Amino acid sequence: MPCLVTKFGGTSVADVDHINRAASRIKEEVERGNDVIAIVSAMAGQTNELVDLVTRTSQFYDAREYDTVASAGEVVTSGLMALMLQGMNVPARSWLGWQVPVRTNSAHGAARIDAIETRNLRDRFDTGMKVAVVAGFQGISPEGRVTTLGRGGSDTSAVAFAVAFDAIRCDIYSDVDGIYTADPRIVGKARKLDRISYEEMLELASLGAKVLQTRSVELAMRYKVPIRVLSSFGEDSAAAEGTIVCDEEGIMERNVVNGIACSRDEAKLTIVSVADRPGIAAIVFGSLAEAGVNVDMIVQNISEEGRTDITFSCPTDQVTTAETALSEVRDRGELNYRALLTDREVAKVSVVGIGMRSYAGVAGRMFSALAREGVNIKVIATSEIKISVLVDRKYMELAVRSLHDAFELEAAA
Amino acid sequence: MPCLVTKFGGTSVADVDHINRAASRIKEEVERGNDVIAIVSAMAGQTNELVDLVTRTSQFYDAREYDTVASAGEVVTSGLMALMLQGMNVPARSWLGWQVPVRTNSAHGAARIDAIETRNLRDRFDTGMKVAVVAGFQGISPEGRVTTLGRGGSDTSAVAFAVAFDAIRCDIYSDVDGIYTADPRIVGKARKLDRISYEEMLELASLGAKVLQTRSVELAMRYKVPIRVLSSFGEDSAAAEGTIVCDEEGIMERNVVNGIACSRDEAKLTIVSVADRPGIAAIVFGSLAEAGVNVDMIVQNISEEGRTDITFSCPTDQVTTAETALSEVRDRGELNYRALLTDREVAKVSVVGIGMRSYAGVAGRMFSALAREGVNIKVIATSEIKISVLVDRKYMELAVRSLHDAFELEAAA
Repeated sequence: MPCLVTKFGGTSVADVDHINRAASRIKEEVERGNDVIAIVSAMAGQTNELVDLVTRTSQFYDAREYDTVASAGEVVTSGLMALMLQGMNVPARSWLGWQVPVRTNSAHGAARIDAIETRNLRDRFDTGMKVAVVAGFQGISPEGRVTTLGRGGSDTSAVAFAVAFDAIRCDIYSDVDGIYTADPRIVGKARKLDRISYEEMLELASLGAKVLQTRSVELAMRYKVPIRVLSSFGEDSAAAEGTIVCDEEGIMERNVVNGIACSRDEAKLTIVSVADRPGIAAIVFGSLAEAGVNVDMIVQNISEEGRTDITFSCPTDQVTTAETALSEVRDRGELNYRALLTDREVAKVSVVGIGMRSYAGVAGRMFSALAREGVNIKVIATSEIKISVLVDRKYMELAVRSLHDAFELEAAA
Repeated sequence: MPCLVTKFGGTSVADVDHINRAASRIKEEVERGNDVIAIVSAMAGQTNELVDLVTRTSQFYDAREYDTVASAGEVVTSGLMALMLQGMNVPARSWLGWQVPVRTNSAHGAARIDAIETRNLRDRFDTGMKVAVVAGFQGISPEGRVTTLGRGGSDTSAVAFAVAFDAIRCDIYSDVDGIYTADPRIVGKARKLDRISYEEMLELASLGAKVLQTRSVELAMRYKVPIRVLSSFGEDSAAAEGTIVCDEEGIMERNVVNGIACSRDEAKLTIVSVADRPGIAAIVFGSLAEAGVNVDMIVQNISEEGRTDITFSCPTDQVTTAETALSEVRDRGELNYRALLTDREVAKVSVVGIGMRSYAGVAGRMFSALAREGVNIKVIATSEIKISVLVDRKYMELAVRSLHDAFELEAAA
């Protein structure tokens, strides 16, 4: 039997009606002749409530107990989904992380999956089970404790099951019906992509298109598991097609640029006049990493008279942490700088496309488009398949729309 | 180290503040030099919400999935309680049913505990753990599925742990501060008992004093584990003493009568004129048992001309089921009767006391007291240590109060 993995996010199992609708989707796949592994998230809001309880109970939490509590939401939905399917005459049962088992390391709160044992589920599929409803987001540590995989971890659960069971595809149902050339709330004429490569999806995910957890895309890319992103809400069959995230080879027509991503809550910090010598960057970014600051873009300006400026970006809510970390290394005499300039009012806008690799001129076209609208570029960073800029936050939407036009993303490939 | 088992009911862990208070009680016991096994229920109302979700998801539910869902509430509280204790510097960790493991049979929804493995907990107690916070109400079946022990099952969890770990005592915390000579809401001057025997507690529990699950008392009696019933709410140290439920030998002064119990929602059914021959009672009560009717009192009237009347009582909400079951056996020709009379407006009142065994005259005193108040007795049933009567429901409170006076229960033993 071909095996298909489907994953339903919190909004897709938010209440009994939604669970019913999701179960109907699963039933359709069974009727198409598939064995289905359905990964379920907690009902929307449940995990937040549980985490809130933990926060109110203890300030210095034990991540093992945090995981025990936080994993309870998926336990509930797995049982409910199995019941719903049984009510539709689909042979189904629930599987908790420790029952499969999903073996993880002991990094509670953000555990990595080491192995998914397939024997138990295979035995059941061989004896009549058509759907294994698996509680997402959870596993079991070598010590026998419940672990969780971090926010969005159910996506990773889903892809990991698809890998372990050699699934034909991994369908990720959520409240978005696919991957768009830009955020449709910003660009009204944004177009849904039929296909996108893993590499592009990774850039889009890490750039703020919050559709798939980054780790899940990495995993899918490594094992070449096709992911389909689709909505469990729409009735429209075209919409139900969603977007396939797959290997580059699976995409016939490669656009130069496939999407415009943006990320609103960015901050730009500039360390003014530090010594321009080896080891300084290591001190700066070592101390920031230790403090837990997610540094994104890094730019070092041209050196003058043995001193230089270092500019980096991070989420706005980490600015205070970053400032503290840097002033501490200065106080300890490990780093000397004249000033630390902070700009909390920036946003990041990026153009992403695997076609860039073989096509020059993308940067020029991007910068011209922004210049035409009078949008000043504050920082530029590039990778093989993307170009990102920081701009004043108030211009973010304008920048995204003008780039969408400039690269003619409205038209189909 | 002496081991103490403490159990906290749903109202005792209803929110973070209550969990905090319960944790303080546990900490006191640790400071007294005990290793503590704390059994926790779900936060008040949680299990009902989960069961409600199951009911709304599926009409014909799979008890295995029901158990998966229904067990989630205790998972949450066990983690939260461990966190709260850690915050008080008490070395604690949570244990789910499958982690202990608590091995049960496969009777999902009302599983029996077969064995509690002690090695894992003992290893941890030996290496510094002071409190094992155990999710009550749950276990693991031979098939590796989550089981639940039925309503009030956390009491049974608690006593079973006390037996397995040879605990010095099992403290059951709830919102009542002990066992009273009568329901204090009915008899204002009801007195809290310092001690009560298992046998009396069993009669009181099954008679509607909803303090302890009957199975937990049976288990405690078999293994002679003292249970202390006390409130987690009162600050008063005398109230905190609660009531000890123990072996008869542990009770010095035995009262003739120790308590007046009552049960409001009873119904009386009379099968009029059935053949008075062997096998008829088996047909009647066999069919009722099959239909799931909890028959309580049974009285057979004097036989006349080869025919007799059979009267029995059951909860009012099972009357329709009983009527259907009986008319079905009549339709099948297995039972012949003239009429089935139903009185849904009765209540049961009982006097309970181990002293009755060696003291005659209790029945007379009881019936006289009721007669003085003009309360008509409809059915009488007796056991070695109790006498129960059915009376019109409107007289229930009056009957309880007059019996409380008649047996002078207000005065201490």
